[in-house]
Order: sequence, then C-alpha cells, then structure tokens
Amino acid sequence: MREITVAAAQMGPIQRAEGRDVVVCRMLALMDEAKGRGADLIVYPELALTTFFPRWYVEDTAQADAWFERDMPNETVRPLFDRAARHQMAMSFGYAELTPDGHHFNTAILTDGSGKIVGKYRKVHLPGHAELDPRRAFQHLEKRYFEPGNLGFPVWRNLGGIFGLAVCNDRRWPETYRVMGLQGVEMILIGYNTPAVNAEKSEEGPEKRLFHNRLSVQAGAYQNSCWVVAVAKAGVEDGFPLIGGSLIVNPDGEIVAEATTEGDELVVHACDLDATLFGKKTIFDFARHRRIEHYGLIASRTGAIPPP
Amino acid sequence: MREITVAAAQMGPIQRAEGRDVVVCRMLALMDEAKGRGADLIVYPELALTTFFPRWYVEDTAQADAWFERDMPNETVRPLFDRAARHQMAMSFGYAELTPDGHHFNTAILTDGSGKIVGKYRKVHLPGHAELDPRRAFQHLEKRYFEPGNLGFPVWRNLGGIFGLAVCNDRRWPETYRVMGLQGVEMILIGYNTPAVNAEKSEEGPEKRLFHNRLSVQAGAYQNSCWVVAVAKAGVEDGFPLIGGSLIVNPDGEIVAEATTEGDELVVHACDLDATLFGKKTIFDFARHRRIEHYGLIASRTGAIPPP
Repeated sequence: MREITVAAAQMGPIQRAEGRDVVVCRMLALMDEAKGRGADLIVYPELALTTFFPRWYVEDTAQADAWFERDMPNETVRPLFDRAARHQMAMSFGYAELTPDGHHFNTAILTDGSGKIVGKYRKVHLPGHAELDPRRAFQHLEKRYFEPGNLGFPVWRNLGGIFGLAVCNDRRWPETYRVMGLQGVEMILIGYNTPAVNAEKSEEGPEKRLFHNRLSVQAGAYQNSCWVVAVAKAGVEDGFPLIGGSLIVNPDGEIVAEATTEGDELVVHACDLDATLFGKKTIFDFARHRRIEHYGLIASRTGAIPPP
Repeated sequence: MREITVAAAQMGPIQRAEGRDVVVCRMLALMDEAKGRGADLIVYPELALTTFFPRWYVEDTAQADAWFERDMPNETVRPLFDRAARHQMAMSFGYAELTPDGHHFNTAILTDGSGKIVGKYRKVHLPGHAELDPRRAFQHLEKRYFEPGNLGFPVWRNLGGIFGLAVCNDRRWPETYRVMGLQGVEMILIGYNTPAVNAEKSEEGPEKRLFHNRLSVQAGAYQNSCWVVAVAKAGVEDGFPLIGGSLIVNPDGEIVAEATTEGDELVVHACDLDATLFGKKTIFDFARHRRIEHYGLIASRTGAIPPP
C-alpha cells in the first residue's frame, strides 16, 4: 500500500476587484485545515490567484498582463510555499504565467513536500476564442490571452508515486490522460473554472456541465487506471456562475469524494497508489493490448475530415 | 434533421449446443419486430451467430474453426440478408471470420438498406489471453482464436450519415472512437459479449461491469460528439453469465435508451444525426482545439514506460 491523503481544495469565487493577498489568505486557511485532516498533498484550482479573467475582453492584451505572474514563487504567494514546507505538504495550483521573454500560458505547478517546485505544466487545450464574440452570452477569451502549452504532458515522481497535471478543458480530451498513461501516471491533478452555462447554448445548464465534468474525469481515470483529482473554482464571480463539483476518482473510474458546496471546501480522501496496479496489468496493460499501427490519425490529423 | 430509427437488438444467451439456424430465427423475429417499430437500422451483438466460444479452450485451434464463417453472406445467414432487403433495413452483426487464406478475425459488418455489405471491421483490441490460464475463474481466449484486426477503424457513408463499427473491448479504448471521430463519424455501432464477473477479480461483479460499459460508451460519444449504439449478447451461456445493458447514447454522452432484460430485447430510438453538429463545431471542433504536436506518444509508444 502506498497511501497518500489528498485534499482537493475547491475555492469559491474571486471577484475582479479582489487582490491576490486576500486570496492567498483563503488558500492558507484551506491548507491549515488540510493539515489538520492529514493531507500529504493539497490541490487548488486553475487560475487560483485571480478571478477567471478570460471572461473580460480588452482590446490591448498588454492591459491583461496585470492578471499574470512573472515569477513563481513571487512575494505574494511566498506564504503558501512557506506554509506548505512547514506542513511538509506537497501542493499544486494554477496561475497565469508571463515568461521573461513575453509568452503567456495557463500554467499549473506541483511542489514536493519541502515547497520546491518539481513540475510545471502549461495548458494545451485552450477552449473559447480569440476575438470579441457578441453572439455569446459571455466571453471565453482563453485563445486571446494564452498560447497553447509548449511542455507536452510530462509526469514526475513525487511522494512515492508518478504524478501529472492538466488544466480545465484538457480533461475533456482523452489524449491528455493517455499521453500521461503511457508514462505510467498514477495520479493526475486537474484544476478548472467552468461556466455553469454553455455560452453558445443557454439550455445547457449546470446539471449537464457537472455531468460532462464527471464523465470526462471518470473515463480518464478508468481508461488509464489512475487516480484523478479535479478541483473547481466555483460560485458566482461578478455575476457569472461557475460549477463546483470538485471530485476525486479512483482507478476504477468511481467517484470516492465530491464537493457539496460552491465555496471554499476541502474534499479529502486517502488514495492508495497501489490501487492503480490491477488495471495497469490486466485490462489496461497497454503493452499487451494497444495497437498503435491503427492510431496514426490521432497524432497526424488535427481536424476531422469526413469521407468523400 | 436527419433522423434514423435505430433498433439495438440485444440477444439473450446462445448455448454451445445450439445451431446457427435457431439463432437466425431469433434474429429474424427481432428484425420483424424492429420493422414494426419503424427501424431503419438494426444492430446485433458481437459473435451474434454462436455462443461466446473463446471461453472454451481447445489445444488444436483448428478444432475451433467450426465456430467461424468462411463466407459472408453464407447460406445460413442468407435469410437475414433477404429479410433486411425486404424491410429496406440496414443491418450490422458480428461473427467469427475465417478468410480464404486462413486468417481468423472477430469481425462485424454493416449493410445498406438493400442488404448489400457496405462496411467490414475486424476487432483491433483483443482482450484476454492466448494460452490456457488456470488461475482465471474462466477462460477468455480471444488472443488464441483471433488475430488483431488489420483494417483499422474505417467509416462509411450509409443512410445519409457517417457510420463506424467497433467490437466489444474496443469500446474501452478512447483511440477507437477518436480515429473514427477524426473521420467525422456520426454513429458508432458496437456489439459486445462481456462476462458479468472479472475472471481475475471475483469481487468485480455485474454492477461494476455495467458501470464500465456505460462510462466507456458515454465518454466516447461525448468526446467525439457522435451517437453510439452498444448491443450485448446477454444472459447465461452454459453456466457463464454475460451482462446485458445494451444502450443508445446521444452526442452529449447521455443514455437515451437502455435494455432492461438479459434476453432478446429491442432498444429503439429515433436518432437525429444532425444532433452531432453542435459539439463538432464548438467544444469538440478538432481543427481549432486539438494539438497533435503533443500526442506523439499515443501512436508511437505501445506500452507504458514510467519515468526513471
């Protein structure tokens, strides 16, 4: 048994006017609570330090740079790293990253139990659009403010297991899980900010959005025989509702713990990384069962091309 | 709207001693009932003409050739093709295929409304094992009796839409759906024979097996915005129970119809192929969102390789 106790730290809304210092205080409170519940790892959502700013359009994207972090860690988030080290707790959170050479990514990091960053991931599957789209009920400008991630889907050894990261919309894409599965991933950590209504189909509300969240995460866990921890920023940000539904899914694809609120809330579960082994050596023993000679289109064709 | 009425023709058990003629009679009865319910397409399960013979070990595999069809159609199944043509109903079923040059495949075919075969698929993902394995509660010798399919995952235009086929264990592999999704598939037809107990883990019973069946099929439908029709051979064959749970899933991943028995049973639904369009042009518009530069491992690495 290789048991690690994971705290999925769902966060309630962050309003546009709120400063990062207030947010870090909330994150520290969640971390202290996680420590009290025996957590070895705390997982915060995507863009954990700010509101989900891609809903706001600015013509000059340089004006959006205020939402980005130029260093990690930086002074504002230093207390998180210090506290995590004191608690000997690994940590993951998402933030908007502005690199020294001017690139913008939707990024997540993973630390070890000493507060050292051991993994960085940049969101590959950016949803939404790049230009103001007045037909939508609200904007989702991730393709305006971010470039697609350029680090692939790496995995890292940490806490005695093999970990991977993904961000929000990545979780709907089976390629995300599979590329990590092919590196033996045992636990995938995913933060998200998901509007409670489809901006292009108003009858698709929170119930269906939560269903798709569960379905994607459960399938990814089952089909790669790994744990998945998916963590929301939830609730109403400046009038725009986000789903909650943070959940921890076991390697059989079963939900073992799930959030019940849309606010700051810990979802804690003791996860045995050895529970990944049975699936990996039987029905999902890739070496015995996968047939890559028939998968070529997946890595060679981007868009769908119907037959003549 | 491009509505086609689909009848998922779940079949109850076929005992080892039963002849194909008896089975064809049952299939004809289901077809006539489907006609009465307005079906444009009837979908039978994997290995629809015989018992699930890979549970039986024979040392000399040539002795298993009696389970295979050397021609399609042949005299035994000719009544199915004739009746389907009379009903102007398309049809799909699975059978064990022995080719003129001696190759063995777990095959499914698709006909148009005139009884002409327009598509053939050979199962790519063979589960189980090739040698007698006394540690298992029962045998699952698909790797003994079949070669992996050599036709890839083709799609065909039929009934005004784009169709693909898969067989049983293929449905657990996201690659199956994705390769067809990249060819614009609108409806995937999948037959299965799934033991109600995991042969290597007796505590995994029918409830969990049905859950994995639904999860895999629903995720494949949602993530490729297509209809999926999954059809069981169900019930107890010579003492060995198979799950039922035949189901039709819409392009949102929702179950719209599901079997309630483990016997011969039609599950009928009017499926609008245009319901696939919204997902294909928004969240799963592959051309805008997929990033093939990060998917290389999927088509180049067969087995999982953990990091050092």
